[in-house]
Amino acid sequence: MAEIEKGLEGVVIGKSAITFIDGLHGILRYRGIDIKELAKNSSYEEVSYLLWNGRLPTKTQLSKFAKDLSRQRSLSPAVVQVLKSLPRNSDPMEVARTAVSYVAAFPRKKSETFERANHRKAVQLASSLSTIVSTYDRVRRGQRPLRPDSKLGHAANFLYLRTGRKPSREFERAYDTICMLYADHEMNASTFAGCVTVSTLADLGGGVTSAIATLAGPLHGGSNQRVMEMLEKIGSADKIEKFVDDELAAGRRIMGFGHRIYKNFDPRALILKEVADRLTRESKSRKWFDMAEKIEDYVWEKKNLRPNIEFYAAVTLNALGIPKDLMPSVFACNRIVGWIAHIFEQYADNRLMRPLTEYVGPEEQHYVPLSQRS
Amino acid sequence: MAEIEKGLEGVVIGKSAITFIDGLHGILRYRGIDIKELAKNSSYEEVSYLLWNGRLPTKTQLSKFAKDLSRQRSLSPAVVQVLKSLPRNSDPMEVARTAVSYVAAFPRKKSETFERANHRKAVQLASSLSTIVSTYDRVRRGQRPLRPDSKLGHAANFLYLRTGRKPSREFERAYDTICMLYADHEMNASTFAGCVTVSTLADLGGGVTSAIATLAGPLHGGSNQRVMEMLEKIGSADKIEKFVDDELAAGRRIMGFGHRIYKNFDPRALILKEVADRLTRESKSRKWFDMAEKIEDYVWEKKNLRPNIEFYAAVTLNALGIPKDLMPSVFACNRIVGWIAHIFEQYADNRLMRPLTEYVGPEEQHYVPLSQRS
Repeated sequence: MAEIEKGLEGVVIGKSAITFIDGLHGILRYRGIDIKELAKNSSYEEVSYLLWNGRLPTKTQLSKFAKDLSRQRSLSPAVVQVLKSLPRNSDPMEVARTAVSYVAAFPRKKSETFERANHRKAVQLASSLSTIVSTYDRVRRGQRPLRPDSKLGHAANFLYLRTGRKPSREFERAYDTICMLYADHEMNASTFAGCVTVSTLADLGGGVTSAIATLAGPLHGGSNQRVMEMLEKIGSADKIEKFVDDELAAGRRIMGFGHRIYKNFDPRALILKEVADRLTRESKSRKWFDMAEKIEDYVWEKKNLRPNIEFYAAVTLNALGIPKDLMPSVFACNRIVGWIAHIFEQYADNRLMRPLTEYVGPEEQHYVPLSQRS
Repeated sequence: MAEIEKGLEGVVIGKSAITFIDGLHGILRYRGIDIKELAKNSSYEEVSYLLWNGRLPTKTQLSKFAKDLSRQRSLSPAVVQVLKSLPRNSDPMEVARTAVSYVAAFPRKKSETFERANHRKAVQLASSLSTIVSTYDRVRRGQRPLRPDSKLGHAANFLYLRTGRKPSREFERAYDTICMLYADHEMNASTFAGCVTVSTLADLGGGVTSAIATLAGPLHGGSNQRVMEMLEKIGSADKIEKFVDDELAAGRRIMGFGHRIYKNFDPRALILKEVADRLTRESKSRKWFDMAEKIEDYVWEKKNLRPNIEFYAAVTLNALGIPKDLMPSVFACNRIVGWIAHIFEQYADNRLMRPLTEYVGPEEQHYVPLSQRS
């Protein structure tokens, strides 16, 4: 029997022209452009176009793309009804998974090919997922759903749809940066699940549904939420050292530290630390930033580990007013464009994914009639 | 860079004690018991218990297990409402994916652990998926949904819930055999997708949702439907040779032939051929059996390929009155117990699944401001 590739660590499953990661040197590039340059200069819409099309859009292309997204941002009454029919204490990621699957289960239009339907659904799902998440957040708080504002883009709409207030330029920019940093990360577990799904030539909606289902886990998209829970549990800066010492002594991991791919540092964490720093100055959420920085230093001293994207994403999202249990959904709302880019790559050069397991169960035995079993 | 393991063919991802396949000799065993013995003597309920618990149940265990399943067989009005709110021409697999995700999005009961909730949902989903599929089939035909009959088991209930008529003993037994044969098949693409999903420690409902999304593809669960479409397209026995010759000349595969794992023959196809033969004698669906047998012989003569499970599954399901586009859902209704068995194995010895891709995209380049792009 072949060697066991548990967790598929180091296994290369195909070629990809989308995202380049150098885990040793902390480099992340979308289609060749460093994430640092994009975070500083670009927008989520531009980055989405870049990931899907391989290059930055011209002015005309960007304006058409933004309009296409804007047109698909609203939810049909049937989708809002599904959101309302779920209990208010459902997990927002499980709700998002259900609503996306529901939207995608509407049949193709007459004479629409499978390919055309997938392209239409790509825009529809990438655009409406943020509305799904923010609408469920309102519904569960007993508030009336809002309609997207066609004058606002992806980032501002999300903040607006939750609260009904148009965000400040600073808030919008901070959130737009998170959106860009979350947009893709090569063959992570959720993207991989989406690719496994469409490797049977299943529909794109199914691929995105699988990806959301996968991102929901605490080892993947759930860790921003857990970072914030950890900060609240520690409560104040003077309790950090004891908390970290106790966790490490018990053999537990500190939430938001370490990464399968980045061995030294996660470049997204550096960018988000700056964003969180700017955003929390003179705000009451500064406390969490100060604590986070202290934890970063202490974990470095004790374990030589650097924070990953989720560590300062949690602090930034908290400063933007996002509730803890909505943080994984924020991840989904933005990683969706990466999922879709990889799903189209999979369709373009497909092979059914069908690995093996090593059988370690019982040897051959025979059926025993019910009356003779004990 | 490491070798590319496209489609993960031959890659071993972990140990499993559930299902043994010998692809060269056409052997399939669940927990050590040959599928031939199970198909002859057992029932879907027994096989499900065997897959989940590693051994056949005693009389008391079987009766408790059957009662647990029976209790979960009905749908809540909210689920029926979701089914009714989808268009009548939605793909039944996309509907099933949505309804399963919806059922699983109901929150845990107070004080229920993640593990306990997963065990509860395992029984709930394995039991109610058949009701979801049969209820949607009624709803789309404009018929009133029926309530499961607590005196009927898994196989009989499915046939009853579609038509409102209790099946004959012969129909029930034929369908029960299909149920057992579909129940598990080691690390196939849908089971694998479910395992990738829960490798992030996402919930079991998410794992099953991913698996259904994946099974939907024509390269996997969609092929029974395509076999039946092919038989109808050929239309009569005298057109078989020309059809097969034309397909092979065009480099296309004949639906229902060949298998990634079984290199000589699929033992499930042999069992189902007998079932289909018995079931179609003296019935008007005998025509399809006769055609199927003739295709089998001709493809063997031309290509040395044997049919897989889907070939005679299509003929059997057709004889049982199942519409073509419901055949992939029948696969899902029964493979679900295999998915769940593997998902629990994944939880028990988990490692996040995170493969790599070989980057073949653009070299490093820089961000160009919008005004300078052309």
